Amino acid sequence: MTSQLIDPAHPILESLALNQTQRRKTAKGKFSMKLTLINRMIGAGLLVLLVFAQAYAQTDPLPSWNDGPAKQTIVAFVKATTEKSSPQFVAPEVRIAVFDQDGTTWVEHPMYTQVVYCLERVPAVVKAKPDLAKVEPFKTVLSGNREAMAKFKMPDLEMILAATLTGMTVDEFNAEAKKWLEAAKDPRWKRPYTDLTYLPMQEVLKYLRANGYKTYIVTGGGQDFVRLYSERVYGIPPEQVVGTAGATRYGYDKSGKPRLTKEPKLLLNDDNAGKPEGIHLMIGRRPYAAFGNSIGDKQMLEYAQAGDGARLAMLLLHDDEKREYAYGPAQGLPATRVGTFTQELYDQAKKKGWTVISMKNDWNRIFAFDN
Amino acid sequence: MTSQLIDPAHPILESLALNQTQRRKTAKGKFSMKLTLINRMIGAGLLVLLVFAQAYAQTDPLPSWNDGPAKQTIVAFVKATTEKSSPQFVAPEVRIAVFDQDGTTWVEHPMYTQVVYCLERVPAVVKAKPDLAKVEPFKTVLSGNREAMAKFKMPDLEMILAATLTGMTVDEFNAEAKKWLEAAKDPRWKRPYTDLTYLPMQEVLKYLRANGYKTYIVTGGGQDFVRLYSERVYGIPPEQVVGTAGATRYGYDKSGKPRLTKEPKLLLNDDNAGKPEGIHLMIGRRPYAAFGNSIGDKQMLEYAQAGDGARLAMLLLHDDEKREYAYGPAQGLPATRVGTFTQELYDQAKKKGWTVISMKNDWNRIFAFDN
Repeated sequence: MTSQLIDPAHPILESLALNQTQRRKTAKGKFSMKLTLINRMIGAGLLVLLVFAQAYAQTDPLPSWNDGPAKQTIVAFVKATTEKSSPQFVAPEVRIAVFDQDGTTWVEHPMYTQVVYCLERVPAVVKAKPDLAKVEPFKTVLSGNREAMAKFKMPDLEMILAATLTGMTVDEFNAEAKKWLEAAKDPRWKRPYTDLTYLPMQEVLKYLRANGYKTYIVTGGGQDFVRLYSERVYGIPPEQVVGTAGATRYGYDKSGKPRLTKEPKLLLNDDNAGKPEGIHLMIGRRPYAAFGNSIGDKQMLEYAQAGDGARLAMLLLHDDEKREYAYGPAQGLPATRVGTFTQELYDQAKKKGWTVISMKNDWNRIFAFDN
Repeated sequence: MTSQLIDPAHPILESLALNQTQRRKTAKGKFSMKLTLINRMIGAGLLVLLVFAQAYAQTDPLPSWNDGPAKQTIVAFVKATTEKSSPQFVAPEVRIAVFDQDGTTWVEHPMYTQVVYCLERVPAVVKAKPDLAKVEPFKTVLSGNREAMAKFKMPDLEMILAATLTGMTVDEFNAEAKKWLEAAKDPRWKRPYTDLTYLPMQEVLKYLRANGYKTYIVTGGGQDFVRLYSERVYGIPPEQVVGTAGATRYGYDKSGKPRLTKEPKLLLNDDNAGKPEGIHLMIGRRPYAAFGNSIGDKQMLEYAQAGDGARLAMLLLHDDEKREYAYGPAQGLPATRVGTFTQELYDQAKKKGWTVISMKNDWNRIFAFDN
């Protein structure tokens, strides 16, 4: 890492060197001597920089991680792929790391945040189309009966998603969802949902970026939804969010101004096999590192690992009922429909050399707001 | 521009400043004096850098452009959106510029390069599936009758594209197309197709990037095809290529290794209205600058221009029969099916304040290999 921070090929250093050489060619006598002195002094200044850089390099980039196999695996991977002397060195332009979102970079229980958004949007949708009030599944949502809602099947959810995520312009959707994200609070922590991001994963994102990795969110959630806060919450720009995406339709409003309307037509179901397919569509390169937490991430991890050289494949196991949630059903944890981590997936991870992160044992801190 | 090249908030300068302040707080006597001297000398070194940077800033970033409205419009746009004192300043993270490819950044006549690839792949495809030799349009392609091929209708072309661009794994396609790109030569210039990129547009790409713009190719051509050379030819990484894209299917080969297969199913037809739709899907932000050359770029330019603040919309008119090709039918130029620039589009450009670039009058050089 040190060698990278003070890479002698750094453009600033290179331009200094070039500049000095050029000057030397024409300079004579006093001017030349003066420049030599300046060179030495700049050298001394760079030495101070070096000390500073080394001190920085020695600070722990992953303070919320307990020392253990998971943390060691991450650090070893970064060193192996970024130190120039390493046989597994990876060129900076192909350093790509992908992160699932729900349950990997933020809380997904008891329900995906975006699904909460859709359910809470139903009253406004019904107000605009009153006939929906008598039709299932909208009737149940309006009743507020959470037990009945928990029994929704896929077609019910699809109807709710279509009604709340499509049929409006992109600008209208963005404004509505942004407003909700600013106001809505998770009932357990009583904080905005965007606060419920895992500090240890934030550290990994920053650590990878500091080492030249381009970080992506690859989520089963809606691409347009996650893009609204990805920069602020993860430091990941909208164009580096790959998610489930519907078609849009280009047209014009009454005044002739162009607009994009969100259509109820699925383009990319970015889950399971859809994850590597989405990565190919949106990125076009195979990632070197992949992080997930459920069966929906299995193919993404397989795909990342199938490339040459050093690869990092990690799965987060939610085994911390006290500080967050505990669910599997792997390792005898309670079964769940939201973020299922099967024993089969656990066994595959062990067999393939993927690392399972124990939230309970590997993380000494979960949220930035934790003491 | 100067102020950006020597931005006092540059991390290297900041870290120097921080370092010196920290040291001063604890340093005493001789050590402090010595450091002050170092500071001065570093100051002198930076002054040399400054002179170098200013000299650099004063060199023309667009030497292949004749001085005229087109060049002035580009320079004025960059200054308006990147100088901090400008009322139209645009934050670096949203500086996005999109470029059509065929006819905008490289030659598209007499036929799109990718179509040439597909036609030249037909014999290999027929060899693998001999029955196709008796079926149209493959029969005509094998006959080598260019006149007959020129009469192909859309369904013919679609059959050829499906047969040559799908049905293989992504890795197989990449290897085949790469091999072809290295060997194939344009009959007129007798050079690899990737040499036929317009130097003036390359200068615009670099000029925009030097000013913090993220540059994208947004092409009606195949995304997977263009991604193979975008980095090398345009300095644009694969993930910044938005193009016509088919679905892939995730699966495993006989040894259980994951693979992606290219399916004959269109996901994104990245032309006309598909361009703003593709930009939303793949980038998620509205571009500030858009370059095109045909009716297929109309909606992309409208979409870029419809945003707030300064916007740049430019269309390249191929009016240079001698150095390249001349086609319209705008302005009485010969009509064409490849890269059609209608008089209606020309009139819309004038009405909307888009800039039409005349290849003949605005460019003093077309290719890097020109003398």
